[in-house]
Amino acid sequence: MANQLLEAISISRPIIQAPMAGGITTAELVASVSEAGGLGMIGAGYLDGESTRHQIQKVKAGTNKPFGINLFVPTPYKIEIDLIEKAQEALEPFQKKLDTSVVNEFTSYEQTLETFYEQVNVVIEEKVPVCSFTFGIPAPDVILSMKQKGIYTIGTATTLAEALAVEESGMDAVVMQGSEAGGHRGNFLADVEQSMIGLMALIPQTVDQVKIPVIAAGGIMDRRGIKAAQCLGAQAAQLGTAFLTCKESGANEIHKQAILQMQQEDRTTLTRAFSGKSARGIENDFIRDMREVEWELPDFPIQNTLTKSVRSAAAQNNDKEAMSLWCGQNPNAAEPITVWELMHKLVDEA
Amino acid sequence: MANQLLEAISISRPIIQAPMAGGITTAELVASVSEAGGLGMIGAGYLDGESTRHQIQKVKAGTNKPFGINLFVPTPYKIEIDLIEKAQEALEPFQKKLDTSVVNEFTSYEQTLETFYEQVNVVIEEKVPVCSFTFGIPAPDVILSMKQKGIYTIGTATTLAEALAVEESGMDAVVMQGSEAGGHRGNFLADVEQSMIGLMALIPQTVDQVKIPVIAAGGIMDRRGIKAAQCLGAQAAQLGTAFLTCKESGANEIHKQAILQMQQEDRTTLTRAFSGKSARGIENDFIRDMREVEWELPDFPIQNTLTKSVRSAAAQNNDKEAMSLWCGQNPNAAEPITVWELMHKLVDEA
Repeated sequence: MANQLLEAISISRPIIQAPMAGGITTAELVASVSEAGGLGMIGAGYLDGESTRHQIQKVKAGTNKPFGINLFVPTPYKIEIDLIEKAQEALEPFQKKLDTSVVNEFTSYEQTLETFYEQVNVVIEEKVPVCSFTFGIPAPDVILSMKQKGIYTIGTATTLAEALAVEESGMDAVVMQGSEAGGHRGNFLADVEQSMIGLMALIPQTVDQVKIPVIAAGGIMDRRGIKAAQCLGAQAAQLGTAFLTCKESGANEIHKQAILQMQQEDRTTLTRAFSGKSARGIENDFIRDMREVEWELPDFPIQNTLTKSVRSAAAQNNDKEAMSLWCGQNPNAAEPITVWELMHKLVDEA
Repeated sequence: MANQLLEAISISRPIIQAPMAGGITTAELVASVSEAGGLGMIGAGYLDGESTRHQIQKVKAGTNKPFGINLFVPTPYKIEIDLIEKAQEALEPFQKKLDTSVVNEFTSYEQTLETFYEQVNVVIEEKVPVCSFTFGIPAPDVILSMKQKGIYTIGTATTLAEALAVEESGMDAVVMQGSEAGGHRGNFLADVEQSMIGLMALIPQTVDQVKIPVIAAGGIMDRRGIKAAQCLGAQAAQLGTAFLTCKESGANEIHKQAILQMQQEDRTTLTRAFSGKSARGIENDFIRDMREVEWELPDFPIQNTLTKSVRSAAAQNNDKEAMSLWCGQNPNAAEPITVWELMHKLVDEA
């Protein structure tokens, strides 16, 4: 059976490196994945227009092969002082412990939207071969402009209804994010609980009703997972945690070690406490201590701004108990190897 | 690669019909699955010793092929009057609406344990080829007695740590229940949240560390799921929802129709409200109305006894809003067909 997706984006392996935001997807990581026949992807979620362009150009300097980029679609939010004050109160013990200061500058929704459109323009100007979106579906003109420039567009969905909405929007393919996935949930129509569907159930029901190519994401760490995703009907697998611990990844060393050293008694869990949006990571003190108030915290990205100083200070202090240690449900197979070694394991090992 | 599990239990297809309790697994269902080359299983969770024997003998009358049975391992619980009174209060609106009476007789843990040992003796006397256990690991003498009689024993686990405990207990194989699964969660070391791991992540990490055969359960509805489970390293797949809607299944017609007519806006969810133990089913009024108090309700099986009259009355009134509509995360592929037709689809369709 011809693989529509691989042909469309001209890659030889059904492997997409998940566009993890926040400095993980270095140009070296992205270019190495593409060089090895997969699709490397820049996680541009927290970048402005100029850094987005810079990052794209660095990847281009590292590979002539196709690569992609991911943008966060802004969701309307308000800067609510009372919520922010309550959140600051909840964060105080961590700020004191880590000797960091309070943040008082927040980006408005209008500014966030402006940055998003700057990014969109950069992606179009730089003709990035593939652009995926998370947290929603961009306005029709964004999708249209990209498609007119020959950019392959990919949406992110967590339920069949969301997949149908992505298809309806005219995007070329859809990443189905299973409940196994590390990092932020991509739900935008479903609530978080409704969005927690395992890939074994999610992929078949999606490919039965959606005509565009489906990419499976969540808990896939090795060749077995890629094969299983293909059996279920996916045309490719998107792997995050497996690439996060690679030598070329820009993830903090503490973060990498936390994943590599996961013990049986450790667990991953969902939390809103770091960013205001539910995400899966290794459970630590911060998540546990914020558990009771997490649903009263400000929305993304306000809470993300609020916790920034705590997360940075924790990283500098080698304190994994206050860092966001995003991780999928299958960290056991993670290895501290190069992208080249990982890609070979993903396609060659029997 | 030889399939150790299939050889050990002498079946030709890597398909196990999940032992759904509460009247679903009629002798006809169980025998038909075994006749078609899979492993039919009696869900004996709510039966006493004599009905267990009766059910086994009925299956034997329907097939000469191997079949299995599942027993609930009793977990210590107390009859706490204050909790029961609060639960009765919460149930009142439903009891009034459905014109049913309050239950005042509860089985003690000691009685439950006695019934369990009666069942164990029946299984041994009747030499049922396969016996699986849910909700925990039985005492060593139970496992030993069964193994001495040549009965193949299977544990149920939801995490790697639970799978290792099953292996350590001496059981012959382990069912790994993914977060996709319908019905009761089988967690016994992990808490419910920790137990919610998707099969895509759960199976590889288990087969890498456990030597006994692994069976995948949860969200598997068709050939694609079975193949995927095998790619991940499972030796067989256990299917519940797919068999629940079969013509031979004893599930209430309302329950079957609720699954067959699942719409995009419907959802499955976990609830403790029906039985005192978390289970996945189609969300309805009962689950929603009990949401706020569900974690204050008595433990299994007390809450199960308390809701019995409501569930029965609802079934008699064709009122699916107060019935427990257990269902996995992939109901879309459910069909009202015979076991024979389903088994052919599971192995033959390309």
